[in-house]
Amino acid sequence: MNSEIKIELTEHSKINSVDFDNLPFGSVFSDHMFVCDFKDGQWQNPTVKPYSPITLDPSAKIFHYGQSIFEGMKAYKDADNNVMLFRPLDNCKRLNKSAERMVIPQIPEELFMAGLKKLLEIDNAWIPTNDGSSLYIRPFMFASGNGFHASPANEYKLIIATAPSGAYFAGKVKVLIEEKYARAANGGVGFAKAGGNYAAQFYPTQLAIEKGYNQVIWTDDNTHEYIEEAGAMNIFVRINDTLITSPTSDRILDGITRKSILQIAKDTGIDVEERKITVSEVIAAAQNGSLKEMFGAGTAAVVSPIAGFGYQNKDYDLPELEKPFAAKLKKQITDIQTNKAEDPYGWRVML
Amino acid sequence: MNSEIKIELTEHSKINSVDFDNLPFGSVFSDHMFVCDFKDGQWQNPTVKPYSPITLDPSAKIFHYGQSIFEGMKAYKDADNNVMLFRPLDNCKRLNKSAERMVIPQIPEELFMAGLKKLLEIDNAWIPTNDGSSLYIRPFMFASGNGFHASPANEYKLIIATAPSGAYFAGKVKVLIEEKYARAANGGVGFAKAGGNYAAQFYPTQLAIEKGYNQVIWTDDNTHEYIEEAGAMNIFVRINDTLITSPTSDRILDGITRKSILQIAKDTGIDVEERKITVSEVIAAAQNGSLKEMFGAGTAAVVSPIAGFGYQNKDYDLPELEKPFAAKLKKQITDIQTNKAEDPYGWRVML
Ligand SMILES: Cc1ncc(COP(=O)(O)O)c(C=O)c1O
Ligand SMILES: Cc1ncc(COP(=O)(O)O)c(C=O)c1O
Repeated sequence: MNSEIKIELTEHSKINSVDFDNLPFGSVFSDHMFVCDFKDGQWQNPTVKPYSPITLDPSAKIFHYGQSIFEGMKAYKDADNNVMLFRPLDNCKRLNKSAERMVIPQIPEELFMAGLKKLLEIDNAWIPTNDGSSLYIRPFMFASGNGFHASPANEYKLIIATAPSGAYFAGKVKVLIEEKYARAANGGVGFAKAGGNYAAQFYPTQLAIEKGYNQVIWTDDNTHEYIEEAGAMNIFVRINDTLITSPTSDRILDGITRKSILQIAKDTGIDVEERKITVSEVIAAAQNGSLKEMFGAGTAAVVSPIAGFGYQNKDYDLPELEKPFAAKLKKQITDIQTNKAEDPYGWRVML
Repeated sequence: MNSEIKIELTEHSKINSVDFDNLPFGSVFSDHMFVCDFKDGQWQNPTVKPYSPITLDPSAKIFHYGQSIFEGMKAYKDADNNVMLFRPLDNCKRLNKSAERMVIPQIPEELFMAGLKKLLEIDNAWIPTNDGSSLYIRPFMFASGNGFHASPANEYKLIIATAPSGAYFAGKVKVLIEEKYARAANGGVGFAKAGGNYAAQFYPTQLAIEKGYNQVIWTDDNTHEYIEEAGAMNIFVRINDTLITSPTSDRILDGITRKSILQIAKDTGIDVEERKITVSEVIAAAQNGSLKEMFGAGTAAVVSPIAGFGYQNKDYDLPELEKPFAAKLKKQITDIQTNKAEDPYGWRVML
């Protein structure tokens, strides 16, 4: 592999057409992207080039067999214009874990990091500075090789694209605990950030939205008795003063926000349990008043507080707390991410 | 919807470069394809045009969220150059069933059939006549709309591409009964021909291949005690003279070959059972000699006989029969497909 990164700069920057005070999430794209091709058994042609359309044969396997994975991460800029990433190697390692399960070639960490850094250097001006805003980074890999035979492709593309973004969710969400549909099988691909997992969530989510909820709480596909994830986030439940989250498994994504929250909570004296959570204990806790909080955790929203949930045609409200763990943890984690606080963990990576 | 189909003919037919006596499966593509776009809430621009690359924004949701479905069907030509399809409306209905689960818009049957017929008319010369060969037809639909938000796209493409093809499998296959991995969850998308299901199969299949098998027999994800599918085919097991296949469910694809075989078997006096098949009964039958045959059933291979299987580090051989059901049923079904036999069912559709 020739790891020298080729650079092709755009001749028409779009940056002046972007209103950085009113950024949507993930729909305004920066000037450049990083592209690398896997061909003839190796990664080649690493290039930062203008964000531009991709051209593929109609038989490219991405269109037929869902051989695709992705990551989601963020870059932040502090008051001194330092650029920071949050645990970026963990994203790269997870990308490779997803890749293994989907029979996509491993991407060398140095190549991934070199491409990402070069891209952020070139599109530095696209990293927002407004509070709550960040540069959302989307690395993705997919089968670009051809053929109607249902087998792994022989060619792949890695692309890293970025989108200056505002906050992901506004306000508290109402969720529905799923009793029929599931996002992941035992021995399946739920732990991977594989494209197909997300399309599979759309229909049950749409049904929940039609019933007046914002998101689905995923339960295990066999008994629907264990609470596993919240939409495309990991889930935390606070009963009395104990913060509980499901253990990761082959059905559950090993979220970077989740594990960061677990660490911070422990270190700030919050009682933490990593164990299976049953629907019945959550209902019981809601009924006896010991259920204090529920929230989703993920890169996009960081922490997404849940206002209430539905289960078996009944709605349950969560209390409005003065000092919720959710808000405290969100502040602690974003302060580390944005260089407003000490980082005793070495999670922040300055570029 | 303006359902008039626009026609753009290629100026450079590739047909003279194709060796119709040595066709691979699904990797030589005909001159044209049918394309239709879903935009602004409706299907539009149905066009038969040269088979040519597709251009998409890097944020097109197909690359990120696996929102894609496909079908597989075949066109045949008889000695008099009649062109025939096999139960094509069933493919269209299944495409729409898959579409509903993946939140992809429904395609009107008339539009699908009109596009397909026009395409086959224009590429008539690409339909092979050699025995065992056929024109493999690949309709597929995917999210072409943009954005890094994990939600259904607002734009889609339907494409029908074709590939003159030889037989799919050569010889009998050795299969491995899966004890760890699974292709489908309860309440999941296994019944849909969703792209992500196939990528999810690659890794376990690769492990089986490394152990010397050709394919995986999928079992339920919870107990691994029920036999569900064979690779990307439905599965039939013959114990003594009874032919058994698993009932369809939300984990199992409702195969057109499967239901055609069930019908033909019944009507030709074969005892048929549609019921759950346990691994233990198959092992017991292998041990006491009552296990006569196992075979996969699907459009590509029609019937794919299994020579033996592995389970818990033991291999089991199936007997070599003089007159297997597999061969008889394959002949009956292909004779109907290719107009060599009466079609009492009305399955054959002449164009
Ligand atoms: C299914 C699922 N669960 C959880 C998460 C949270 O992971 P992370 O905190 O690494 O963003 C994600 C991704 O954002 C996800 O897609
Ligand atoms: C998972 C799976 N099972 C079974 C089949 C067989 O279906 P059909 O006979 O309609 O081709 C297919 C498709 O070919 C499939 O993808």
